[in-house]
Amino acid sequence: MNENILNPKSIAIVGASTNPKKISTIILQNLIGGGYNGKVYPVNPKYEEVLGRKSYSNILAIKEDLDQVCIAIPAHLVEEVIDQCIEKKVQSVIIISAGFKETGEEGILLEQRIATKLKDAKIRLIGPNSLGYINNNENINLSFARKNTGKGNIAFISQSGAFCTAILDMAYEDNFGFSNIISIGNKADIFENELIEMFQNDSNTTAIALYIEEFSDGKEFVKLAQQSKKPIIVIAPGSSEKAKEAISSHTGSLASSYETTSTAISKGNTILAENSVQLYNLMKLISYKKIPKGKKIAVVSNAGGPGIIATDNIEKYGLTLSELGEKTTKKLLNALPSASSMRNPVDILGDALSDRYEQAISVCENDKEVDCILVILTPQLITDIIGTAEKIVKIQNKTSKPIFACFLGKHDIKSGVNLLNEYNIYSSSNIEATIRIISKLVKYNSDSVNKDIVEVKDIKTSSKYITDIKDSLSSETIILPDDITENILKEHNIAIPEQIITPHIENAIEFAVNRFPVVIKATSKDLAHKTDVKAVYVDIRTISEFESKFYELREVISKVTGTTSPEILVQEMVESNSEIFIGANREGDSRIYEDDGKGFGHLLAIGQGGIYTEVYKDIEHVLLPTSREDILEAVNRTRLSKIIDGYRGRPLLAKEKLLDMMESIQRLLISYPQIISMDINPVMLTEEKVVAVDTKIYIKD
Amino acid sequence: MNENILNPKSIAIVGASTNPKKISTIILQNLIGGGYNGKVYPVNPKYEEVLGRKSYSNILAIKEDLDQVCIAIPAHLVEEVIDQCIEKKVQSVIIISAGFKETGEEGILLEQRIATKLKDAKIRLIGPNSLGYINNNENINLSFARKNTGKGNIAFISQSGAFCTAILDMAYEDNFGFSNIISIGNKADIFENELIEMFQNDSNTTAIALYIEEFSDGKEFVKLAQQSKKPIIVIAPGSSEKAKEAISSHTGSLASSYETTSTAISKGNTILAENSVQLYNLMKLISYKKIPKGKKIAVVSNAGGPGIIATDNIEKYGLTLSELGEKTTKKLLNALPSASSMRNPVDILGDALSDRYEQAISVCENDKEVDCILVILTPQLITDIIGTAEKIVKIQNKTSKPIFACFLGKHDIKSGVNLLNEYNIYSSSNIEATIRIISKLVKYNSDSVNKDIVEVKDIKTSSKYITDIKDSLSSETIILPDDITENILKEHNIAIPEQIITPHIENAIEFAVNRFPVVIKATSKDLAHKTDVKAVYVDIRTISEFESKFYELREVISKVTGTTSPEILVQEMVESNSEIFIGANREGDSRIYEDDGKGFGHLLAIGQGGIYTEVYKDIEHVLLPTSREDILEAVNRTRLSKIIDGYRGRPLLAKEKLLDMMESIQRLLISYPQIISMDINPVMLTEEKVVAVDTKIYIKD
Repeated sequence: MNENILNPKSIAIVGASTNPKKISTIILQNLIGGGYNGKVYPVNPKYEEVLGRKSYSNILAIKEDLDQVCIAIPAHLVEEVIDQCIEKKVQSVIIISAGFKETGEEGILLEQRIATKLKDAKIRLIGPNSLGYINNNENINLSFARKNTGKGNIAFISQSGAFCTAILDMAYEDNFGFSNIISIGNKADIFENELIEMFQNDSNTTAIALYIEEFSDGKEFVKLAQQSKKPIIVIAPGSSEKAKEAISSHTGSLASSYETTSTAISKGNTILAENSVQLYNLMKLISYKKIPKGKKIAVVSNAGGPGIIATDNIEKYGLTLSELGEKTTKKLLNALPSASSMRNPVDILGDALSDRYEQAISVCENDKEVDCILVILTPQLITDIIGTAEKIVKIQNKTSKPIFACFLGKHDIKSGVNLLNEYNIYSSSNIEATIRIISKLVKYNSDSVNKDIVEVKDIKTSSKYITDIKDSLSSETIILPDDITENILKEHNIAIPEQIITPHIENAIEFAVNRFPVVIKATSKDLAHKTDVKAVYVDIRTISEFESKFYELREVISKVTGTTSPEILVQEMVESNSEIFIGANREGDSRIYEDDGKGFGHLLAIGQGGIYTEVYKDIEHVLLPTSREDILEAVNRTRLSKIIDGYRGRPLLAKEKLLDMMESIQRLLISYPQIISMDINPVMLTEEKVVAVDTKIYIKD
Repeated sequence: MNENILNPKSIAIVGASTNPKKISTIILQNLIGGGYNGKVYPVNPKYEEVLGRKSYSNILAIKEDLDQVCIAIPAHLVEEVIDQCIEKKVQSVIIISAGFKETGEEGILLEQRIATKLKDAKIRLIGPNSLGYINNNENINLSFARKNTGKGNIAFISQSGAFCTAILDMAYEDNFGFSNIISIGNKADIFENELIEMFQNDSNTTAIALYIEEFSDGKEFVKLAQQSKKPIIVIAPGSSEKAKEAISSHTGSLASSYETTSTAISKGNTILAENSVQLYNLMKLISYKKIPKGKKIAVVSNAGGPGIIATDNIEKYGLTLSELGEKTTKKLLNALPSASSMRNPVDILGDALSDRYEQAISVCENDKEVDCILVILTPQLITDIIGTAEKIVKIQNKTSKPIFACFLGKHDIKSGVNLLNEYNIYSSSNIEATIRIISKLVKYNSDSVNKDIVEVKDIKTSSKYITDIKDSLSSETIILPDDITENILKEHNIAIPEQIITPHIENAIEFAVNRFPVVIKATSKDLAHKTDVKAVYVDIRTISEFESKFYELREVISKVTGTTSPEILVQEMVESNSEIFIGANREGDSRIYEDDGKGFGHLLAIGQGGIYTEVYKDIEHVLLPTSREDILEAVNRTRLSKIIDGYRGRPLLAKEKLLDMMESIQRLLISYPQIISMDINPVMLTEEKVVAVDTKIYIKD
């Protein structure tokens, strides 16, 4: 993306007037008041002059070159201005106006028409339905935000303009600035990826924050986030079914599943924020480089109770209390009154003044077992609130280990909190929220160890049966016949039980007789979704049993499907130590692995199989393409991995073979991107082998 | 408890001086400054006069009757004053001084000695290690808290004095008062229960809040909480292992397990707070009676994004978005601009002024599908922050449905937040925290439907084998021999497999031959903890197989125990549809069900059995004594209950028989309170029956 789009030399503002309440007027005021250096043209046929500047009747009336046009007039008047912009050959347009895709059919068409026209004319577009943008590096505030907090090192890209205003209101109180704030609105042209890419090269930006309800190009986002040298902080609401409906109604598009977006986000150099306050605090902490190197925390408190609350939460959020070294304990013994607790959490007692805090914090800071320090203060009788804040500032200035402060209260503690804030030190009256955010930072730090990036071209594909699949393909989801499924599984060396599919009992018996015990079941085509119909008979050991079950099953299938002589699947029976579920879903169309395919690709799922799959939902995900290491990590995240790894003296199962199978499935999915979903349940895992017993594949264009 | 203890007619303060920094002086100042009506006697031999009052050389120098003595001098000087108090026959003593139980061996002894002396003299004691207490109904502030926020309807009892100061600092900012605040410190005499009982009858108290690290008498607390007519809000830190260590080190006592305390708390008319900020907000919401009648929320927002965040969290925390009725939707259509979202979350758009908020909130409030309303405001350009707050106040005054406000930001929103606060309306800039607290209130409301209270005397006991157990009992935990276990299971009609315990192979074969398939295993006594030793052989179907396994097992046991001819357990093999775990742990001593027994009693656990017990930790708890309904609720809380209830067309299992068994286990445990823990894993549950296959019982005095 041309960075001039956020740094135009001249801007026209369509709709600006003498009415100070109009959005366009406010944008003009913000632009001028913000100290913009370029040329500014109010455009409004009703006025000669606006805010002391000549007003133009339309875009074409401006004779000089014009880089950017900002449009903030009712939606139905926008298209005419767009036509003028095209004639004028401007570089970019930003449409503030709402009333497009988010309002329904008519708005969708209008938005599409405008976007197409601009695209054809090679004019870039931000919006519509945007708050505007702020580029503090160039003193450009082309937005109708209530306020701008000035320069900083975070670039914030938001799909919600209102969310920008909330973040700015938080930031204003804290005097916290941004390098850029971009409200991308409906994203008819420019969306998050181009901006992320641009901010990678912006020396004024050290981290990128993102509020995003749906990713316009998920696959590319993942690539960018993986390659990003800068942390990307993401808040991605829409995890719930109801929220997905709400997103659709207000953005006019379909939201991705929570699993897909969160798995995608976790692949990159990213931190996923869980709420807006946390997002804001993460921005600040990352802006000020307060990221602990590890998960070991020392707690210094002037009260026992809150120390215990901290301890609970440290365990809850996966961190650990530092085991303070012998030297540290000795130093604490020398520095603190004897009734203190010298063990972590260090209790320096209710009569602690600021010097006692200073000593305890400094001693802990010196211990190599300490990655960061949580200082808790309760406002007791002689507690020196501001003095303690000063000591924290003093120590923080000398160490790279982050100090987090929890001053508990609201009134008296304010003086200390304000001082900490002034020196960019995190403080909160909520111990739980504080430890939760520390755990986010710690996880980010440990995740961000460089991982190999696997690309689709690195994956060996093989697609002998592609014509079989393409023959069946339609815009509806359909199940693949079992024989084709068998073929493509074998093609990818995925072990399946010996099996035969036949309508003839003689053939079936011939197959079964050397393989008892066997299993018989309906084919996928016949009874894929009929989980309530008894269509599987296991552990058949004799010919007579086989015959009776065969006929029984035939009758069941005939009843449901109407076929008199249905095909029946006979399999050798496979015993296992652990039943596993492997599944996949494609998010995006069937061209997803082509350069121009949009979406995320296949999300591969692994976890507990059999009857417990949906009871325990012990399922972890990886987004393809991925490495064997990432697949292993996903397996290890399942609780089932305890069993795989030989739980309580039980045997170790064939984990490497399971990983082989998952890699084979990855190759299979990328070979046949027409697969929209795939279910292997159960996969039988023993000490020696892994077998995909029951595989259902669905395809869709 | 005599309420005069919190309302004495005369108080002596030992240690008060002219030094304004001394704790005792500050207590004296707080007492006088707070408008105390009774008589006040400073006691300090070094002064003639303190704060304009005659100072007494010691307690005995006071000639008038004396109700209460407050002691705030170094710990080693306290005992002498106690002796004077006894001679003076005062009613109660409050020891502010620290340096007792929490400091180690010497402090423990000193505290015990003082407590015993006072008890013998029938003088009641608060503390030691207390901040003091505040009784705002009688204008008594006998504490060294920095401030007092005045009258209110919440009584706050806290084991941590520092925590009181933090809560008071929050309350001061909000002008939120308390009826009483009691810092109970080390609880050498008076502890939480007596105070809870007293506040039940205090007409100025409508709810009780509790910060508690360990319950001094858990069993009685549960009874009080169950009978409580007033909500009890509890924060009970100490869920983590590390926290339990920390509690021990700073209170000198042992903490209960998290499962026990949280299960115990949930039995009563209680709300369990998860962090201190939440505790404080719950106090306010309950004080102001803002408890939704149900879990259906309407969201009104001037922005789509935050509405989606709310929707996610409503699902996450188990609430539901109201399905707005047809009438409501029509009214919204009339009242709002067409681009608004009339569905819940209701998006009234970024240009909404306060009247649009008013209309949308009022319309939602009128819908019977709405139990409470969440109003979200982002500070956009023309947003009327204070006006919207005014409308919220206006509507809240007319409805009993609680309104919760999330004004997102920090600076501009302050005016609105302050107004809401003034009118006791909840507001927060954190949507997640808000919905989390709403879910707490909703759960409280649905739980507080009166439950039957089951008492130990309601449980039918039977204890034929009590002498067998008492013979083995010691202060160490020991495992009960399998034959006694078998006897007491049978005594309580708990179905077990047919079995024989014998060292002789002939007897074993004789038993097995009519019952194949069978299982053989080591007895509990021999190999209870040797899970890594292969000591169970299942599915034995022939005599020859039986013989070989019998000798194999004999050898294994001999190797471990040294016995040449060990006893071996032979059982019929029981197949099942579901393997269940039932366990129990006793918290408290073996006299727990006697009147004077202290502790909580047995915590009964139910959940997934077999190899997945510790993998999925799908275990729920009930505290005994309890009702069949409560047991059923615990079973239903397990995810395993899906399987029990006939998952996806699978058969319904014998749930009623499972409940029968759990009731039998309750009778067994109350019959034999010497059982410190019990493990039945697996319990085999089929469509017709339930069998306890493997039971281990541990006893301890």
